[in-house]
Amino acid sequence: MTLKDTNRVPTGQNTEEHMSNLTRRNLLAGAAVAALPPLAVPRAQAAAPLAEKQNPGWYRYKVGSFEVTAVTDGANTNPLSDSYIGNAPKNEVNAALVANHLPPDKVTHAYTPVVVNTGSKLVVIDTGLGLGMYQQSKGAVGQFHTNLAAAGVDRNAVDAVIISHCHGDHINGLLGADSKLAFPNAEVMVPAGEWAFWMDDANAARFPDPIKGQFANVKRVFGALGNKPTQYEAGKELVPGITSMATPGHTPGHASHIVASGSDKVLIQADVTAGAATLFLNHPEWKSAFDTDGPLAEQTRHKVYDMASADKMLIQGFHFPFPGRGYVEKSGSGYRLVPAAWNPAI
Amino acid sequence: MTLKDTNRVPTGQNTEEHMSNLTRRNLLAGAAVAALPPLAVPRAQAAAPLAEKQNPGWYRYKVGSFEVTAVTDGANTNPLSDSYIGNAPKNEVNAALVANHLPPDKVTHAYTPVVVNTGSKLVVIDTGLGLGMYQQSKGAVGQFHTNLAAAGVDRNAVDAVIISHCHGDHINGLLGADSKLAFPNAEVMVPAGEWAFWMDDANAARFPDPIKGQFANVKRVFGALGNKPTQYEAGKELVPGITSMATPGHTPGHASHIVASGSDKVLIQADVTAGAATLFLNHPEWKSAFDTDGPLAEQTRHKVYDMASADKMLIQGFHFPFPGRGYVEKSGSGYRLVPAAWNPAI
Repeated sequence: MTLKDTNRVPTGQNTEEHMSNLTRRNLLAGAAVAALPPLAVPRAQAAAPLAEKQNPGWYRYKVGSFEVTAVTDGANTNPLSDSYIGNAPKNEVNAALVANHLPPDKVTHAYTPVVVNTGSKLVVIDTGLGLGMYQQSKGAVGQFHTNLAAAGVDRNAVDAVIISHCHGDHINGLLGADSKLAFPNAEVMVPAGEWAFWMDDANAARFPDPIKGQFANVKRVFGALGNKPTQYEAGKELVPGITSMATPGHTPGHASHIVASGSDKVLIQADVTAGAATLFLNHPEWKSAFDTDGPLAEQTRHKVYDMASADKMLIQGFHFPFPGRGYVEKSGSGYRLVPAAWNPAI
Repeated sequence: MTLKDTNRVPTGQNTEEHMSNLTRRNLLAGAAVAALPPLAVPRAQAAAPLAEKQNPGWYRYKVGSFEVTAVTDGANTNPLSDSYIGNAPKNEVNAALVANHLPPDKVTHAYTPVVVNTGSKLVVIDTGLGLGMYQQSKGAVGQFHTNLAAAGVDRNAVDAVIISHCHGDHINGLLGADSKLAFPNAEVMVPAGEWAFWMDDANAARFPDPIKGQFANVKRVFGALGNKPTQYEAGKELVPGITSMATPGHTPGHASHIVASGSDKVLIQADVTAGAATLFLNHPEWKSAFDTDGPLAEQTRHKVYDMASADKMLIQGFHFPFPGRGYVEKSGSGYRLVPAAWNPAI
């Protein structure tokens, strides 16, 4: 590109003239372009400091007359370990990351609990990694309680907390800074199959880490709450308009939830795909180290996503990138996520 | 589904048992499920009122050492007119809407200006529909100034406002409530080809509406500012790290901008795809009623997106759904947008 070229004023009359400025070489030659003298900008004030602050991540939408608020607990990024996918080599995992416009050799896990206001009940579904992890991660995760406040949700007003399954990223936020229930007026509901599984020491003995290590955490959290959650069964309407659905495999009693109002509904899927969820959407056959039953988890993924893609069902995914709301389409031998458009109003 | 079924507790031992709960009939039979008695939830407090309030839409990310903040001006939805796409029948447009998980017979336009803090300069790129439209639309659009404040950006600290082209949704927010420059210390920069086109009354005479109707608005806005913007050429570095690129067709002097810091960059595309941008990504050959030169707009789309898809280049799109940040992939005879993952920190 010459100075002569850049001084041409596009007039809209001559296609060739305009397009001469639009070549790959010009677009990528940032360094060469930078050598041109910039236009003078008057300096009327001091440089504005960098903000280094993100928008508190919450997003609200209607489901019929209900309000659903997705509230991020944050996200963390860790090196990709050789055992992250039990049945695929690291180079295949890296290829999938890159195909998803993600950097190789690391995996990002995002966490998005949900608040549903049905108009008569205020319900939280899953609770994030908790305040301990907030401190440990320097705010990268464990943001749920502060983002709830930013979203204008009063923890004291919450009627029920529905837990999808007993992994730490879903239950730790049940506890406040005082290690008591962070939602003091709420009934805590846990799938009966989860309670039976995690309370049985014999199960801890027969699983390797990282699953073995999770048993103590379940006892820690629910022990602090007096070990008295309400146990619920699959297919039950837990609160008017919120119905549980068995989606086992990730854990034995893992439940998803259908939030329905009028003719409108959303599937709150929890961990049908967990961790770096995009990878397991693309490869439902991949075995996560966190799945207690890999083949059953795979089967559940196919059942849920074959249904959701055929019916163009809206899905809210705990581990989808925030705000975690989208549609699933068939793609190759798996699926892909199509995020729903953000509505700047409600 | 019978009560007997729903009372089975999944144990993780028996695949068939679990999957019996997960059928399309169960998932969709919300009404039948609703007939089951819900679990009792203690009512410790009054029902929480619906919030009816959305998160102020801004999202911040780093490009090298720069901070880019996408700030929504809102979105509006209008009926799909027969003339919305000049060269495709309404049923084809509806099919594309539905394929994108959007409702038929209407189109939503989202608007997302951008703020770049280079560390030494604070720069706004495009300005939204302005305060008049904020009032007229009851807050659906024209949110830019209030969302800027929510993002912690002081309008008085802005050094430069770069305009991509002179359509009202890009220039109206230049004016504050007093019809004076809303960024009192900023230099306003406009593509020279835009200025030449919109200031020439002969051009107004040769275009039909809606293009004809835009000339008066350009004179209104820049007249209020004294008709003295800095005119810039394609290929120029306007502020250190922000370089213009000619992307004509939507309008004759339409410019996009490359924001580059270190080895990192993002293409701020403005209206390479405008209006319901997803449709023109899928169908780059579709003629928008707002494009002054349809064939040139199509050619620009192919040039930009062939390059961006080959190079996996990050694009910030003014009319992409908020936060408007993503990648473009080839899909069929066109392209599709893959939104970039939201980072809950910065």
